[in-house]
Amino acid sequence: MFKRILIANRGEIAVRIIRACNDLSIESIAIYSHADRESLHVKMATHTYAISEDPIKGYLNPDLIIEAAKALEAEAIHPGYGFLSENALFAKKVKEAGLVWIGPNSEVIAKMGDKNAARNLMVANGIPVVPGTEPLNTLSMYEIYKIANKIGYPIILKASSGGGGRGIRVVWKEEELEASFNACKREALTFFKNDDVFMEKYIQNPRHIEFQILADNYGNVIHLLERDCSIQRRHQKLIEIAPCPTISSDLRRRMGSVAVAAAKAAKYTNAGTVEFLVDDGNDFYFMEMNTRIQVEHGVTEEITGLDLIARQIRIASGEILDLTQSDIHAQGYAIEARINAEDVHNDFIPNPGTITAYYPSLGPFVRVDSYIYKDFTIPPFYDSMVAKLIVKAGTYDLAIKKLHRALNEFKIRGVKTTIPFLINICNDKDFRKGNFDTSYLETKINDLLPQESFDESDLIAAMAVALVSNFEE
Amino acid sequence: MFKRILIANRGEIAVRIIRACNDLSIESIAIYSHADRESLHVKMATHTYAISEDPIKGYLNPDLIIEAAKALEAEAIHPGYGFLSENALFAKKVKEAGLVWIGPNSEVIAKMGDKNAARNLMVANGIPVVPGTEPLNTLSMYEIYKIANKIGYPIILKASSGGGGRGIRVVWKEEELEASFNACKREALTFFKNDDVFMEKYIQNPRHIEFQILADNYGNVIHLLERDCSIQRRHQKLIEIAPCPTISSDLRRRMGSVAVAAAKAAKYTNAGTVEFLVDDGNDFYFMEMNTRIQVEHGVTEEITGLDLIARQIRIASGEILDLTQSDIHAQGYAIEARINAEDVHNDFIPNPGTITAYYPSLGPFVRVDSYIYKDFTIPPFYDSMVAKLIVKAGTYDLAIKKLHRALNEFKIRGVKTTIPFLINICNDKDFRKGNFDTSYLETKINDLLPQESFDESDLIAAMAVALVSNFEE
Repeated sequence: MFKRILIANRGEIAVRIIRACNDLSIESIAIYSHADRESLHVKMATHTYAISEDPIKGYLNPDLIIEAAKALEAEAIHPGYGFLSENALFAKKVKEAGLVWIGPNSEVIAKMGDKNAARNLMVANGIPVVPGTEPLNTLSMYEIYKIANKIGYPIILKASSGGGGRGIRVVWKEEELEASFNACKREALTFFKNDDVFMEKYIQNPRHIEFQILADNYGNVIHLLERDCSIQRRHQKLIEIAPCPTISSDLRRRMGSVAVAAAKAAKYTNAGTVEFLVDDGNDFYFMEMNTRIQVEHGVTEEITGLDLIARQIRIASGEILDLTQSDIHAQGYAIEARINAEDVHNDFIPNPGTITAYYPSLGPFVRVDSYIYKDFTIPPFYDSMVAKLIVKAGTYDLAIKKLHRALNEFKIRGVKTTIPFLINICNDKDFRKGNFDTSYLETKINDLLPQESFDESDLIAAMAVALVSNFEE
Repeated sequence: MFKRILIANRGEIAVRIIRACNDLSIESIAIYSHADRESLHVKMATHTYAISEDPIKGYLNPDLIIEAAKALEAEAIHPGYGFLSENALFAKKVKEAGLVWIGPNSEVIAKMGDKNAARNLMVANGIPVVPGTEPLNTLSMYEIYKIANKIGYPIILKASSGGGGRGIRVVWKEEELEASFNACKREALTFFKNDDVFMEKYIQNPRHIEFQILADNYGNVIHLLERDCSIQRRHQKLIEIAPCPTISSDLRRRMGSVAVAAAKAAKYTNAGTVEFLVDDGNDFYFMEMNTRIQVEHGVTEEITGLDLIARQIRIASGEILDLTQSDIHAQGYAIEARINAEDVHNDFIPNPGTITAYYPSLGPFVRVDSYIYKDFTIPPFYDSMVAKLIVKAGTYDLAIKKLHRALNEFKIRGVKTTIPFLINICNDKDFRKGNFDTSYLETKINDLLPQESFDESDLIAAMAVALVSNFEE
């Protein structure tokens, strides 16, 4: 097992990885920007390394990070999610520097990162994909119009190197196609330095269901059941549920088998996620494979009892997977709500600032993964997620009630957060019934926004639950 | 389901019950003494009721509590543990007042509370008990000597109404018998107002293994596996583990069947615990049945995924148990460490005071049940437990490592706590090997005490793990 691991990340995932290192008696190295010097991952790590004055550039510089790893004698690098986690070149350089990359190898990252190559691989292996095309860039607009008519509107245009909801355009009718295609190419070039764009049939209002994969270096591949991540705002997941409360055990079994087949086709190793779209006829389509740990991995941990970050490290160190598919059983339902420091009344713009009070929810079947604390000032340079609240209960309905309780108990002061908005989701009948797809938030958002004049004591009175209203001085 | 429940308790268990009420959309009523007016259970409950100026008397007064329940229109009373939780008269009065008692009925409490009656019931039902006698008080010393010689020394004298480690005397040889018998009678009279004393063979250095029972009002009884509670200091449990890391699956199955048979023999309902002694030959003996929720119920919750307090409430409301024995599977290992505000260098005397900093451990597979917070002053009138730290992992060994990490992460300032002592237990080879029985702490305590000159930064440096040492301002 490794003696020392460098964590090429920040925020809650860096804290999460440090905890896994501590659990395994491995020393951790935190890298940090000047803006992050008071961040919890810096305070908790065994060793620290100031990677840059700039808030972003250090976290995105493979050579600087490898230099830090060498200087502090790390044996392996954990990339977390975001930043360089899906950067094949970084993974390659890490390996070439004689260090272990905690994730799949660079070839797999590269292939799965190229949406078109990934799609072709899946088609070749009999995995269902959404009807679609190769990159269209060499074709004339006339040919592109013909293809779109053949697939049938609505269609969706996607950047081949896209991700994070960027480089995507839905085209509802023929007359929008050319403008959308050009806009998509421009966005792809800006964000991904590659303007390849392809076309797919647009599945309207699908559910987003993804399977967690665990694969060792010796060909053993299992899935750890699925997560329903349909509750999204502008392609950003907000609430994730494991297992999906609405699919049948037969569909789960079939999708799970396909997910494992997809991972095997990709020669995948370490933890990864196969994402599917499921349409209203319960047909499912491979969407993409994420070659890293996901934000929402915690809900899978809660239902399976497995520590995914520890498993990533153990697999990277060469351990043989000591689990088979029949060892994996869901215990109840887990739900994660992402708590963002955002102003929900101002188009959810980030609301960084200084935390003046912080009381995370505690107690049975409640878990908080975060990197903030009282008097910490959230830097304005990073994403706005400040905590992940994860609950677990015997049924989906009880899990929602527990989430509602835990959100009410969670007190963050000094910045505006999405907590009141998330509480409203818990109270929504359609959410409670499992009656949602990826259009849920878009359709409902105005009903779900808390009142402008939102005042916590009002809300609490309205619910006739005092909770910790007078908990603060 | 109930609309409103009164909680006849304080401290962490009151907070725990409030959370279960919130999870089930039930309103909670906290009662509190003047000394507890700033306690978290008072701040978190839906409704509150000042039960007494006196720190103790209100919590022990059945009539006052029932009056409060009536005044605030509670439908049921949850007694927690300690205080009146095993008081059959209180349970009876609650029922007579038209309220629901969240626990077994008063007859069962009375019978199981009389150690002699419980023992006879078990013998009549073929449950193995430690060889022993009826109360000895009517016999002459001559006859008592004869009985002791027949059983064979060492023997143990026990108050029939005893509990909490009081009214117990081990007798190693004949010449100590009379003095011990008289001392035991006096202590029994003082603490339990009943000087009945009986004799048992003394099982030397047994393991203390207990099975969690869940039984509904319709005869359905299951067990939720076992807890090893052998790590005790002066008969007070300090660390509890579920499942027991050292018993075979065959012994587990046999003991589980006996535990269910014992509960059925007692016509038991609601949650309860059957405690066994297991000797070094793996013979096991019924010790007693606790007719309430236990402090250590959380480790069972973690491995089974079941919320025991919610289950207590649901059973009391008349729900049919929707689980059978085959539904119960352990997921990994859970360990609880009781964190007490005590001076370990001064015979563990309570060390109440004001909490100047409080950072509970957070993150995956770590749970904290507590009632303290920053600036709270722990009242000096109650027991010294301030938090329960519960961790879970795939194996016993990984669970100990996780406990070690979480203890290091847990920061309580302003009072002395047992955290450094608990960390030393985590580092002890015998504890790590599962090589312990009820004599473990007594034998090892001097090796496990942290150095007098204990300074946190030293300890952390020694472990080469920085953790959150610089987390505080």
